[in-house]
Amino acid sequence: MKILVSNDDGISSPGIWALADALKKIGEVTVVAPLTEQSAVGHAITMKYPLRVTEYYKDGEFFGYAVDGTPADCIKMGVRNILQQTPDIVISGINLGSNAAINIIYSGTVSAAREAAIMDIPAIAVSVTSHNAKHFEFAARYAGELAEMVVKNGIPNGTLLNLNVPDLPEEQIKGILVTQQGKTKWDDIYQERNDPYGNKYFWLTGNLIETDNSLEADHFALKNDYVSVTPIHFDLTDYKTYETMKSWNLETSFKKS
Amino acid sequence: MKILVSNDDGISSPGIWALADALKKIGEVTVVAPLTEQSAVGHAITMKYPLRVTEYYKDGEFFGYAVDGTPADCIKMGVRNILQQTPDIVISGINLGSNAAINIIYSGTVSAAREAAIMDIPAIAVSVTSHNAKHFEFAARYAGELAEMVVKNGIPNGTLLNLNVPDLPEEQIKGILVTQQGKTKWDDIYQERNDPYGNKYFWLTGNLIETDNSLEADHFALKNDYVSVTPIHFDLTDYKTYETMKSWNLETSFKKS
Repeated sequence: MKILVSNDDGISSPGIWALADALKKIGEVTVVAPLTEQSAVGHAITMKYPLRVTEYYKDGEFFGYAVDGTPADCIKMGVRNILQQTPDIVISGINLGSNAAINIIYSGTVSAAREAAIMDIPAIAVSVTSHNAKHFEFAARYAGELAEMVVKNGIPNGTLLNLNVPDLPEEQIKGILVTQQGKTKWDDIYQERNDPYGNKYFWLTGNLIETDNSLEADHFALKNDYVSVTPIHFDLTDYKTYETMKSWNLETSFKKS
Repeated sequence: MKILVSNDDGISSPGIWALADALKKIGEVTVVAPLTEQSAVGHAITMKYPLRVTEYYKDGEFFGYAVDGTPADCIKMGVRNILQQTPDIVISGINLGSNAAINIIYSGTVSAAREAAIMDIPAIAVSVTSHNAKHFEFAARYAGELAEMVVKNGIPNGTLLNLNVPDLPEEQIKGILVTQQGKTKWDDIYQERNDPYGNKYFWLTGNLIETDNSLEADHFALKNDYVSVTPIHFDLTDYKTYETMKSWNLETSFKKS
């Protein structure tokens, strides 16, 4: 199994080290990851600036390729220019911090996997629930097992799996659930401060509004110590509203020729 | 009607000027837009750096607020700190260049509108199909008419409308269609070059693979000189695969306590 590995925390994150090490036991791993941290970068791609690729060494050994761009850039560059062939699967992570509910929208980790899905390559995004994660071992091994299931069972073109793992010892995890994207979201607050020159600036902070209360929702499953696996896709059409809007009279003041 | 206006081309783009001018005829307009161009920035938000807000003047008159962040940042900042109340609608644009099919994923214009949808505020993203757009007038006026329809008819919380308008005189436009996100996507190519110091760098380029052939697809409707209105949402769950995956044995090597 040829595996392309990326992330959004950057190539020097312990999350991607743990993931690459575990995956090397089950396949041929190529790492192409951002040179610097790219959290909350969403599905940004770099078009106005050129990209550079450098070789990254860890403990004196070649580990992978670093790209001075976004997670989505890394997948494009990895497939087109570095591998120059389609891998069997792309795995992005391990992210430090969960990517569930609304955070899927902002996540660079997920966007790397989504970029693969756009290229019709099966993909998995993997995150552990703590920003100071201590338990990568099970998450890394399970990402590999899920990859084997994906390659064996197949998933539709354009679909990716969003895997989130509680930051717990394996024996404290309650089980593994297929879930849906939850409705939990942020109540944003900007903290107002003054810089040393008296100018105002704002830091984004906020509180989670936790509206999910079923184990079918990714965020709630994680809160209850379950591993969450959510199939997501990039067809954003709201088909229900598409049908409703057919009865709108859209051509108001429009002057047809 | 209280209208919050943003975009991704930046506050000094003629697209947002045309939009704001047209909307002032039908409502109370507040402009909060990126200080600099943010194309292809996706749904990035700024967390690692603080944001600053400056007043932007055009032809000696106050035009709006410039934020040194992303389109999504502008919506959060606009609603929470500048308006300090929920507008009736958010309108993002007018983008120079269409945001249809796969480009919805990369678009900063759409992400501004999506950020509003996340906040349960109705929203419209509006783009004209040319990077050297000449015909803003109808697009700007029609965005306003669509806004009035949205406020009158309602759209579900979490849904936004992605409006794309051909860059043509109004009388050459064939009609207005409710559409779905098309399947057209990019075949990426990185151009390899050397900098003046002999170091390699890569520019992202590519060709469109135009697989859409029905007027139900946004990209094809635009190619055939129709205005395209696509209802999109941010629930990324692939419900079909969610059902399929329930028959997978996910708990492989997992050791339940």
